[in-house]
Amino acid sequence: MEILDKLIWPKGFSSDGLHANLRHNPDKPDLGWIVSDVAADAAGVFTLNQFPAAPVVLTQATVKKSQKLQAVIVNSANANSFTGQQGYENALSEQEIVAKKLGIKPDLVAVSSTGIIGEQLPMAKMMTGIAQLQKSQGTQIAQAIMTTDTKEKVAALQFGKATMTGMAKGSGMIHPNMGTMLSFICTDASIDGQLLQKLLRELTEITFNQITIDGDTSTNDMLLVLANGQSQEAEILAGSPEYDEFKEALYLLMKDLAIKIAEDGEGASKLVTANVSGSGDNLQARMIAKKIVGSNLVKAAAFGEDPNWGRVIDAIGNAGVDLQAGQIALAINQVPVIDQGEIVAENLPALEAAVKSKKIVFDVSAGRGLGKGQAWGSDLTYDYVKINAMYRT
Amino acid sequence: MEILDKLIWPKGFSSDGLHANLRHNPDKPDLGWIVSDVAADAAGVFTLNQFPAAPVVLTQATVKKSQKLQAVIVNSANANSFTGQQGYENALSEQEIVAKKLGIKPDLVAVSSTGIIGEQLPMAKMMTGIAQLQKSQGTQIAQAIMTTDTKEKVAALQFGKATMTGMAKGSGMIHPNMGTMLSFICTDASIDGQLLQKLLRELTEITFNQITIDGDTSTNDMLLVLANGQSQEAEILAGSPEYDEFKEALYLLMKDLAIKIAEDGEGASKLVTANVSGSGDNLQARMIAKKIVGSNLVKAAAFGEDPNWGRVIDAIGNAGVDLQAGQIALAINQVPVIDQGEIVAENLPALEAAVKSKKIVFDVSAGRGLGKGQAWGSDLTYDYVKINAMYRT
Repeated sequence: MEILDKLIWPKGFSSDGLHANLRHNPDKPDLGWIVSDVAADAAGVFTLNQFPAAPVVLTQATVKKSQKLQAVIVNSANANSFTGQQGYENALSEQEIVAKKLGIKPDLVAVSSTGIIGEQLPMAKMMTGIAQLQKSQGTQIAQAIMTTDTKEKVAALQFGKATMTGMAKGSGMIHPNMGTMLSFICTDASIDGQLLQKLLRELTEITFNQITIDGDTSTNDMLLVLANGQSQEAEILAGSPEYDEFKEALYLLMKDLAIKIAEDGEGASKLVTANVSGSGDNLQARMIAKKIVGSNLVKAAAFGEDPNWGRVIDAIGNAGVDLQAGQIALAINQVPVIDQGEIVAENLPALEAAVKSKKIVFDVSAGRGLGKGQAWGSDLTYDYVKINAMYRT
Repeated sequence: MEILDKLIWPKGFSSDGLHANLRHNPDKPDLGWIVSDVAADAAGVFTLNQFPAAPVVLTQATVKKSQKLQAVIVNSANANSFTGQQGYENALSEQEIVAKKLGIKPDLVAVSSTGIIGEQLPMAKMMTGIAQLQKSQGTQIAQAIMTTDTKEKVAALQFGKATMTGMAKGSGMIHPNMGTMLSFICTDASIDGQLLQKLLRELTEITFNQITIDGDTSTNDMLLVLANGQSQEAEILAGSPEYDEFKEALYLLMKDLAIKIAEDGEGASKLVTANVSGSGDNLQARMIAKKIVGSNLVKAAAFGEDPNWGRVIDAIGNAGVDLQAGQIALAINQVPVIDQGEIVAENLPALEAAVKSKKIVFDVSAGRGLGKGQAWGSDLTYDYVKINAMYRT
């Protein structure tokens, strides 16, 4: 299966995005929707932050009710987070307004927001914006969900007669934990909502949950998948070859979008990848991998093109996994640095060259078992500090 | 009890520090020791990193053997970490060389190192340096343990007829976990080593373990306390008024040194403090406080003097503690920002002024119980990135 870096709407899906005056720049869409012609089976994962934003609370309950969605309304510039009862009522109103416009039941509408925490949604602007939304095949929705993102993060692929397409946003406050930033995936394949929910949880663990930009899990993380069955193929059943194919497609799409988020981390100049093998189990491998890409010191060294592999070792030792120094192997961009806990001294000049790459890959072998895992992150740059020192003022 | 910002050697302690050619700058001491006239009762806490450096492994075993120490040898510029069997043998040699010079048993000598990970100690330079060490009342030891620290971190206080003095280093790779960076505390009070060990563990939890610079726990963290009894007062027994006084003195000194580390965090321009009350228990309060001061986004906002309190709320919600948004109160430098989960809108102009302070204090009330805790950290600055991008090259 080949990933294409664009949105290709599956059968029966449409979308739109526009500038609803939520942010100052009039050239930047800040409101959008995704609409399915029919109610789609749906699944979602959501932030584990103790203070989930109003749209997260509402949409989580909405998805749980029937595992069905027909529309997703989303805005950037305002997170509708930590906005109390008023914020929840605004999210409810938004859901009702969209439902009314589409002539569907409110509990088929997902509501999603991203942006500043602690400000009430400007409901007059939202209503004006929603009134203008059309059903098009455009891709402005991918821009409408951006905040400090520098580029759209979209992907699509075909499998059998079905199409799957997805988008994501996320640049800072990225350290997903069961849920993720914002990501919406649509497919015209047919699959039961409960089965989709189970699969989504499983794949989230090895894709979106394995990226980190800054260790902060947002209050607004949300990942939704809609499957509207309009490809007219038979329903995908657990255990079938079609299920394996669907799972592979969803995995590839989620992993691709996750890596695109890491690559576009706030201020990022490099993509940092950790591949861990040989740990006791897959979870341990993922913990080690995520600790490496999450270390400020590893991230700053990557930015400085500093072959300071000691910081990688330090991060591995902090992963909360039982390890022995003498069993560790480490390679950086294919250059072996540590073998059985000993420094491969003659490789250090090659290492100096390797760390100048735009992509830094740490391959770690823990020598303990068959566990494998990956994680992705960005480097820590002056621009990260600049963006986050000046975000609001 | 009043803390003095200098080293005052308690009775029966001496010290020295000198340049042993471990680093390039000839003006910077990089080797030092602390010596007691008699074997002192001693306690230590050490890093929980899975790859403890050779001196940590050796000193932890040494302290455990008899809870006694008479000397501490310490170097900067080289961490003797991830150096395999050779590194451990070098640490052993160092211990023996110091013991021989002092005419004491090797298992009364603590060995400690800080600096670059993964390089073998230059033993010829170490031996030359150790040969030159004197027993003086000088304070160069506080400089000899510095790496990227910009200033000495020392403190002393008097209680009864006894004196307690201490020093610490630590500027990056600071996120202690049961142990800490390097800190050495000496007193001429008399207290049993086992009792001292128990007290040290308890106080570490609420002092050194509550600071964070960058979330990375070093491979070399070590905190030692030596009590040599030379003030000639009676031994301090558990449960006595003298024990309470000793505990208070040690707590104040450890807290003072911990805050000095946070204040001198790599690249730091501000000290960030979180005071949490009203959580279910003290541990929860400490978890919340540490999450706030550990958040890159909070730290960058502090640097940018950006009153982006939403990031504080986000961090609180990520502390892994069960909380309700409607019960939260937050003040920043005494300006109430959130009360019972609602924004105190009229205070936002005052907040803009408050965040310009060199010290940023977040007071959080969780509305759940009687738990209290504090944590300290630094802001995230361009200089942090610069220091850590360029540390080695």
